[in-house]
Amino acid sequence: MDEIVALCKRRGFVFPTSEIYGGLGSTYDYGHYGVLLRNNVRNEWWRAMVFERDEIVALDSAILQHPRTWEASGHLEGFTDPLVDCRACKLRFRADQIEESHCGKKPSKRPGETDQCDLTDARQFNLMFETHVGPVADDASVAYLRPETAQGIFVNFKNVLQFARRKPPFGIAQIGKSFRNEITTGNFVFRTREFEQMEMEYFVPPDDAEKWHRHWLDERMRWYTELGIRSDHLRLREHPPEELSHYSSATSDIEYLFPMGWSELEGIANRGDFDLRQHAQFSGEKLEYFDPQTEERYVPHVIEPAAGVDRTMLAFLVDAYDSEQVEGRERKVLRLHPRMAPVKAAVLPLVSKDGMPEKAREVYDAVRRRVPAEFDEGGSIGRRYRRQDEIGTPWGITVDGQTMEDDTVTLRDRDSLEQVRVPIEGLGAELAERLEQPWTTPKAG
Amino acid sequence: MDEIVALCKRRGFVFPTSEIYGGLGSTYDYGHYGVLLRNNVRNEWWRAMVFERDEIVALDSAILQHPRTWEASGHLEGFTDPLVDCRACKLRFRADQIEESHCGKKPSKRPGETDQCDLTDARQFNLMFETHVGPVADDASVAYLRPETAQGIFVNFKNVLQFARRKPPFGIAQIGKSFRNEITTGNFVFRTREFEQMEMEYFVPPDDAEKWHRHWLDERMRWYTELGIRSDHLRLREHPPEELSHYSSATSDIEYLFPMGWSELEGIANRGDFDLRQHAQFSGEKLEYFDPQTEERYVPHVIEPAAGVDRTMLAFLVDAYDSEQVEGRERKVLRLHPRMAPVKAAVLPLVSKDGMPEKAREVYDAVRRRVPAEFDEGGSIGRRYRRQDEIGTPWGITVDGQTMEDDTVTLRDRDSLEQVRVPIEGLGAELAERLEQPWTTPKAG
Repeated sequence: MDEIVALCKRRGFVFPTSEIYGGLGSTYDYGHYGVLLRNNVRNEWWRAMVFERDEIVALDSAILQHPRTWEASGHLEGFTDPLVDCRACKLRFRADQIEESHCGKKPSKRPGETDQCDLTDARQFNLMFETHVGPVADDASVAYLRPETAQGIFVNFKNVLQFARRKPPFGIAQIGKSFRNEITTGNFVFRTREFEQMEMEYFVPPDDAEKWHRHWLDERMRWYTELGIRSDHLRLREHPPEELSHYSSATSDIEYLFPMGWSELEGIANRGDFDLRQHAQFSGEKLEYFDPQTEERYVPHVIEPAAGVDRTMLAFLVDAYDSEQVEGRERKVLRLHPRMAPVKAAVLPLVSKDGMPEKAREVYDAVRRRVPAEFDEGGSIGRRYRRQDEIGTPWGITVDGQTMEDDTVTLRDRDSLEQVRVPIEGLGAELAERLEQPWTTPKAG
Repeated sequence: MDEIVALCKRRGFVFPTSEIYGGLGSTYDYGHYGVLLRNNVRNEWWRAMVFERDEIVALDSAILQHPRTWEASGHLEGFTDPLVDCRACKLRFRADQIEESHCGKKPSKRPGETDQCDLTDARQFNLMFETHVGPVADDASVAYLRPETAQGIFVNFKNVLQFARRKPPFGIAQIGKSFRNEITTGNFVFRTREFEQMEMEYFVPPDDAEKWHRHWLDERMRWYTELGIRSDHLRLREHPPEELSHYSSATSDIEYLFPMGWSELEGIANRGDFDLRQHAQFSGEKLEYFDPQTEERYVPHVIEPAAGVDRTMLAFLVDAYDSEQVEGRERKVLRLHPRMAPVKAAVLPLVSKDGMPEKAREVYDAVRRRVPAEFDEGGSIGRRYRRQDEIGTPWGITVDGQTMEDDTVTLRDRDSLEQVRVPIEGLGAELAERLEQPWTTPKAG
């Protein structure tokens, strides 16, 4: 993980937030390549969820919602961690993680291990960030930053039914920020207080819920492997009954083998009719579907694939990271799927002879009309290749003396390191076409 | 404006947030077409700012930042509205808008107009939303939801300089949510407490600041008109000296003729070196550029084009909205630039004869591989056209009896209503190509 963090900083993928002010624990800003990579994560999810399916529609609900939403969802009462205070060191700990905690007094010991620590009883601490809307900060103006995007979907169920003319099975997909005031954060961008979710709620006839749950488990696994994640670094873990959330009759996590071990990448839950029934009860609205053909009226059940942009990005980075010896030197390379790569092609003029920079710019302008590209004329060609390898650029295009004679360039493959001579004409279109083709990972292991 | 709001609801562009719970004043959720339209707004800004320019890099900074950021920027002290309380009706009003306010007591009068109202002196009320990070809600844990994305850029200036190897003139572009606890909101999505900004900070040598300010005024005006906004509905308004913010030496607004009158669409400010100097002073970091060629060291000046996704979307909707009489019936149509249209093509099978639905699906599958498309077989063809007109779909493709014989379809133009017979083959590619072509508005006035 340290190597990933170092590369992310060195190449400007990820910076700690407010670094010049000492940072704000476990909050991160994304630099140029990080933004491009995250956009690719979002776009690929969006493509699979919205563009390639007719029965799923898009939604973008607000972060600030009516507080009743969180009463109905159970977050106001139940979205809590048990915390204990130490009367001596004045720190606060998660009661269920006392074993891994350390008291603030020196020499630091585990709370309870020493009589330095004087722990209170555990109290429930709500993980929602609280704020006030309007000029008066009182109970009536309390609002919460949403802890998940899902509830914004449920409260819009009726709007979508009515105005998007959908009938089950249909889905509502949303990408957006959520906030959880976690006490224990960490593992780089794996667990942060501010994070971005990609959630889709799929509304189905109750009898079909299990079938659709299996469907979405398969679909989501396929999404990761088709985008190049090694299948032996992925596994499905079914929640045992005692681990299930109150709203769920079955949940399976897709786990990825992160450097800190197998950890949740995405949860796929069968939420039953819990959410729609709760919001119907709290709002007084009928949240159900009337089937004009069968004349049946029912509350759809919900299958929810819920992934995170940051965590997915991290999995792609970890899975793509490779280091190898090439001609006696270390080569660090991100073997990203070309569709995930922040930059698809780098145009690199080899030497600056008469007309060559201009020619290289021409090639660059033609290529970037079709695929995201970069122009780099700084430093030795070896150094420029290394930079591109580290950000995962699949294709390097070098413009050299021969280019001036016959309008060809060399095309270097990031993974095989093969270089082939190709004509300039049609190169951008050719690379755009390759992006749409299936791609097999050349990753080791 | 009422017609726009009605269309937005009817076609599922925009819904009031938490509507089933009575809403949350001036907060909105975006439905399917609203999300697609907003994505187009973002993508076109991104294309103009990042993809088509080599010297501008992307950033995505966190909403929760270190509180010192807002001390340095001046927001903690100065980002306030003067408020007065009415001791009688217990309402709070903006002191500078007392004239337009109404007391809560019946019969409602303007505060001050009657002795029913007993106003306090004005106090400064900060517009930043406040929350607490971590388990203890005290002064040390206070954090603010960012009121602008710009400061997240300034505090990353050094990171970009160092890791993205840039030198002035260069820019940092960011799209993201900001929050302002406005007392007076309204005009639909024009002014909301939660909104999305598109800001770019352009760092230049001090002597070139005026030149670049003019450059960005021209560029941004061109962006709107090239995407179809009527140029006579746009104007530049230079801030007079007394209106300038404390950080700005010159600001011009691009204003649009909204239904409520000329209003700010985008502000383009010359911020000088105010922000970098402030953050340098508060953080102790050197935020400057050293030019190795001239051996000069200087603090760059900043030009900032700052637009809003929601407001820009509203301008595109307002400008595109048209209503006309066609064959004695009213036709409502959004004359959006094809690149802005949520859906580019609708495939509409005319009748359900043998094999025709299958053929229509084939056409649909081929077209949507190239452009966002929709398949609609519900209701009369006239009704389906009206639906597509209302969401601004530029091209309607009808599959009919002749299609089965010669593999041609009719292509209907949203604006001219002309229908031409075209071959199925290559249709998707042809439409994708048209999206890249300049487009001239057929709008009236």
